[in-house]
Amino acid sequence: METVKGMRDFGPEKKIFRDEVVETIKRIFELYGFNPIETPGLEKWEVLANKYAGGAEILKETYRLTDRGGRKLGLRYDLTVPLARFVSSRQFPKPFKRYQIGKVWRDGPTKVGRYREFVQCDVDVVGSDSLISDAEILAIARDVFKELGIDIIIKLNNRKLLNEMLEWAGVEKNRIEGAILSVDKLKKFGISYVENELKEKGIDKETIKKIRMLLNLKGIKEIKKMIGESEGIKELEQLLNYLKVFDVDVEIEISLARGLSYYTGSIYEIFPKVGSKSSIAAGGRYDKMISIFSGKNIPAVGISFGLDIIAEILKNRKRRKSVVQTYIIPVGGMEKEAIKLAQKLRKRGISTDIGIVKKSLSKNLGFANKFEIPFVLILGEKEWSKGNVTIRDMACGKEWKISTDKIIEFLLSKLYSSTTTPQALQ
Amino acid sequence: METVKGMRDFGPEKKIFRDEVVETIKRIFELYGFNPIETPGLEKWEVLANKYAGGAEILKETYRLTDRGGRKLGLRYDLTVPLARFVSSRQFPKPFKRYQIGKVWRDGPTKVGRYREFVQCDVDVVGSDSLISDAEILAIARDVFKELGIDIIIKLNNRKLLNEMLEWAGVEKNRIEGAILSVDKLKKFGISYVENELKEKGIDKETIKKIRMLLNLKGIKEIKKMIGESEGIKELEQLLNYLKVFDVDVEIEISLARGLSYYTGSIYEIFPKVGSKSSIAAGGRYDKMISIFSGKNIPAVGISFGLDIIAEILKNRKRRKSVVQTYIIPVGGMEKEAIKLAQKLRKRGISTDIGIVKKSLSKNLGFANKFEIPFVLILGEKEWSKGNVTIRDMACGKEWKISTDKIIEFLLSKLYSSTTTPQALQ
Repeated sequence: METVKGMRDFGPEKKIFRDEVVETIKRIFELYGFNPIETPGLEKWEVLANKYAGGAEILKETYRLTDRGGRKLGLRYDLTVPLARFVSSRQFPKPFKRYQIGKVWRDGPTKVGRYREFVQCDVDVVGSDSLISDAEILAIARDVFKELGIDIIIKLNNRKLLNEMLEWAGVEKNRIEGAILSVDKLKKFGISYVENELKEKGIDKETIKKIRMLLNLKGIKEIKKMIGESEGIKELEQLLNYLKVFDVDVEIEISLARGLSYYTGSIYEIFPKVGSKSSIAAGGRYDKMISIFSGKNIPAVGISFGLDIIAEILKNRKRRKSVVQTYIIPVGGMEKEAIKLAQKLRKRGISTDIGIVKKSLSKNLGFANKFEIPFVLILGEKEWSKGNVTIRDMACGKEWKISTDKIIEFLLSKLYSSTTTPQALQ
Repeated sequence: METVKGMRDFGPEKKIFRDEVVETIKRIFELYGFNPIETPGLEKWEVLANKYAGGAEILKETYRLTDRGGRKLGLRYDLTVPLARFVSSRQFPKPFKRYQIGKVWRDGPTKVGRYREFVQCDVDVVGSDSLISDAEILAIARDVFKELGIDIIIKLNNRKLLNEMLEWAGVEKNRIEGAILSVDKLKKFGISYVENELKEKGIDKETIKKIRMLLNLKGIKEIKKMIGESEGIKELEQLLNYLKVFDVDVEIEISLARGLSYYTGSIYEIFPKVGSKSSIAAGGRYDKMISIFSGKNIPAVGISFGLDIIAEILKNRKRRKSVVQTYIIPVGGMEKEAIKLAQKLRKRGISTDIGIVKKSLSKNLGFANKFEIPFVLILGEKEWSKGNVTIRDMACGKEWKISTDKIIEFLLSKLYSSTTTPQALQ
């Protein structure tokens, strides 16, 4: 039987790798002083359907259900709306720097790289309007991808600037939101496509001409010359200053808008230099969204990393096939001795498996080989009675006798560097 | 706004602690050679509703939904049924030793300690009929609770023996399943309750008398004397032999049955010596369940640890309030210098936060104090210009000047032992 359409199982090789990526992301979130939280997979429908939450498009793709008590619920489609609910329902000293890593679900069209269950890794600062926070979020992104070995381009824009540019061009207030959604398509579909959409949205020729002119400008200096001083430009300039201190390179992309309407300031998307045209992390500042839930004005800024697309980009990376470090093969009724030896190794922190299902020695070696287990210990009665076992280095196939007293030190020296040892059991 | 009824948010203090417990469990699973897998939160309804899956009682409590394509789905209520589906749908060398840790959902009655979303930590051996595997599972449980510092009692029984005892007493084949469910209630409700239930289930006086006699016997030797040689007894004896090799203590509990009907051999429940009357881990051997999905006869044995009840038992344990190790307070416009220093510490693996929201020094110290951050660095312009900062040990309140060159080595020496250092960034 199969998984639900659009959802996937991950066997050991994939899961070990995904766990390693998550550990790296988590480690960097924590280095920057972010603490973990966890919220349920299910939310009340009214939370998910809140006017200023994910929006109508996402809501269409949200899995709905009703519990036995008749309550309307939904599976969360992101981790930002649950965060807004979380901070709204409690008092906390500000700023609140939290991360959350978890599954989200969207019942949307499936295609390569688009799944109905996927994992988001979100990091947000709640309660800070300082642009240092925006810069810090981008420094985290830079460090995450550096640690993962993915070359990236960070594209940066500001939602206020977009508003100001469109206002300057003459777009009426009530049409700005729609115009932004069209401008956002520039990189994907080109300028003619954008102009057509703007026309269809009732924006006049003269205004469209001005928008085209603005989108052709290079850098914020030219924009400033054209539209004058503006809040968006000021924010961008200050953020660029902080980014210099953090040593983070970005590219200003003035057509970048991001679909979600709750962004109020910085917006950014991160693309790999090779391997994918989709963004692998994205976010921005959303200073008003939380107030909808809480009634209080609480600024916030964050980013979401897409684990699934990151794992996809790294899929040709060398992966471990198993966590097992040593495989013990008992020969001819040596099971109890094998257990005793295994327990000694485990106690010292060495991951150990035993070949307990009756198989020939060569089949057992084949098993260890298939899973790339680095060392095999072969326990024969005669050798054991003299205090020895045979050890085989699976990488080179070399085999030799070793005294049982010396196995642990030998394995630790081979499996770990001199300064790290695994955690022993109590 | 609140969470869904029966579901919970976990703030940093609780989540950090839960993550630590999970890390311990994961570490021990891996020491015993188990590899992680992951399956989706949603399953096809037909998988969950399979006759030999969780059973009718659990199915009543399963969250149902229909996707946009009209497919009937449900939220998984355990991790065993998904495992059965997983191994049925692929080829793999045996034994397959896997663990999975994840959320499961049940729309059941809520009370203290019973939630509608909870986390199970499952470890199973698929494809081994050796009782060494049963013993290994119990050795894992012993080690997990030893590492967590929880004193436990492991109660052990065998489903075959239960069948044999009831057959010997004269229960008809088609009534054995029902009789077992009644016998299982002995410890909770006493012998009269059990006898009444058996009577209601149509079992005659003479048979009930014999059952009572059997339940009064002490240990398997007495049972053997009474009912003679039996497969269940043989299995129990062999398992006890292996448990001796693993050095695991157990208590035989001949009324122990476990609700689920899919168990075929060993069954066990683990109770804390103090703090809870509910089991904190439970499992057994289920040699037939997977064949229902796969058509092939694949033996399996495993255990499930309940993260939520374990966390509840440990709730008075000292918890970290934050992952942050150092908090930098920039005084009077020293933000950029604070960022530069923070980046240096982070690069060396020290979790660092900066007080960027404008607050007085004493409020900033209060913030660090509230979250029990061990060290605070105060950056004043004058000191900084001379290459110094003020460091404050928050545990004792002592403050002194330190040269900026020496901060990292000092903090590393205080935060880590001489043989461990945190992972630095690339």
